[in-house]
Amino acid sequence: MSGQEELHNSPIGVFDSGVGGLTVAREIMRQLPNERIVYFGDTARVPYGNKSKETVTKFSRQIVRFLQTQQVKAIVVACNTASAYALDELEKEVDIPIIGVVKPGAKAAIDATKNGKIGVVATEATINSGIYNRYIQENDPNAQVLGKACPLFVPLVEEGLWEDPVTDEIARRYLTELIDVGIDTLILGCTHYPMIRSTVGKIMGDQVTLVNPAYETARELKELLREKGLESEHRPGLGTELYRFFVSDAADKFQKFANSILTYGILSAKVINIEEY
Amino acid sequence: MSGQEELHNSPIGVFDSGVGGLTVAREIMRQLPNERIVYFGDTARVPYGNKSKETVTKFSRQIVRFLQTQQVKAIVVACNTASAYALDELEKEVDIPIIGVVKPGAKAAIDATKNGKIGVVATEATINSGIYNRYIQENDPNAQVLGKACPLFVPLVEEGLWEDPVTDEIARRYLTELIDVGIDTLILGCTHYPMIRSTVGKIMGDQVTLVNPAYETARELKELLREKGLESEHRPGLGTELYRFFVSDAADKFQKFANSILTYGILSAKVINIEEY
Repeated sequence: MSGQEELHNSPIGVFDSGVGGLTVAREIMRQLPNERIVYFGDTARVPYGNKSKETVTKFSRQIVRFLQTQQVKAIVVACNTASAYALDELEKEVDIPIIGVVKPGAKAAIDATKNGKIGVVATEATINSGIYNRYIQENDPNAQVLGKACPLFVPLVEEGLWEDPVTDEIARRYLTELIDVGIDTLILGCTHYPMIRSTVGKIMGDQVTLVNPAYETARELKELLREKGLESEHRPGLGTELYRFFVSDAADKFQKFANSILTYGILSAKVINIEEY
Repeated sequence: MSGQEELHNSPIGVFDSGVGGLTVAREIMRQLPNERIVYFGDTARVPYGNKSKETVTKFSRQIVRFLQTQQVKAIVVACNTASAYALDELEKEVDIPIIGVVKPGAKAAIDATKNGKIGVVATEATINSGIYNRYIQENDPNAQVLGKACPLFVPLVEEGLWEDPVTDEIARRYLTELIDVGIDTLILGCTHYPMIRSTVGKIMGDQVTLVNPAYETARELKELLREKGLESEHRPGLGTELYRFFVSDAADKFQKFANSILTYGILSAKVINIEEY
């Protein structure tokens, strides 16, 4: 087997602060069914959304080092906060393709907007980084971008209150100012948010397009692999593990959550000591 | 200066997963005004309440090692989850007095109850550990203990929704079953919960006594220092820093929160790399 062929068959590394990035993994499974995936969720140190750039970068760097021990051919930073804070640094440090969820999401929003008014809902850290604004305005200087931090969305999603009067009430408080300025496109800028897409959609109304960066990221990954000649040409044979899951803590809880959002059932998630990487 | 006198003047180490333990530090400041305090908040890895025993023990052990570099004379585990999961291990490993918040809270509840029905609200981890049940029933085998995990209370407190219809609604859902079984005493088994004491009190009604382990822990610390002859006999002189604060991330945010709950203003909190300990 040649080195190039081995590379074709190598897995994609996907990581997140916890379970949220599984929405991105799910899209990759759908759009790239031939690709193997190694997923890492940093459940010992979750969440990232209220932590500093330095800490998020340090954690992301450890995870990238771990994924490289798994011989991944490309890495997807399936976490908006890590994409916002750490991607620029990581790109300089690794020699395999690495993409985040922010750029694909920003690009899709630019394509979708008609009135040039784009909203972003995300964690405090992602909003504070100003990264969506920056990407969007680099590509469309006339666009207006309004960001809104929604710190209670992640705990509400993790508690399973996906359709609940409390989530409605909190969402209404967060979203009112975005409705008031008349945005026509809203980026779901945190990988947990697709789980409350219907609540957000109901409040924003039909005239607002919701952009899910998970979908766009899987599309961009597909193009990238094609460009670099790294695609897996056929579905791995029997006996090859298609998807592997690693976490830094509490594998049981991760498995339960994963099984509620993936169509493919997770047999096991392995706990590793991420601080050692 | 003799070694014993130095020990008298050494600080108390107090730690928590983040800001919650400041409610315990505040009680120590009130009840033991002569004592110096070194506080550590693990803001890079907060929260602990949904993590495993192994992870919480590992994190706690690192923090104890850090506090020992600060020459503390005693340690207060100002976090219910760490007290529940890690205290037994830590006690074996250190040779200075170390106390948690669970035992003092359990003792106060036994003293307070008249009908023997005691409720505990806490994080998932603390409830799953069964530690309040165990302590209470060891001391009062006839007591009935009903635990209820309230995972949304911490994010609601951290978002400042201390008095808010959403917090009322969530609290009502959590507390209904405790009201239904007729408890007369309720332990606030997480250091964040004293901040929503009035919401909880309103829902439980006047006939239910709320126990705040922070208060009881400071009392137990006072007794312990007296027993061991470790009390500071006078308030440290000018030029001695009375209270020092360390965190593992985002010192600014910690300071802001600290200043909202402590009467004493925090001048600065220093960020350290806790994974190195």
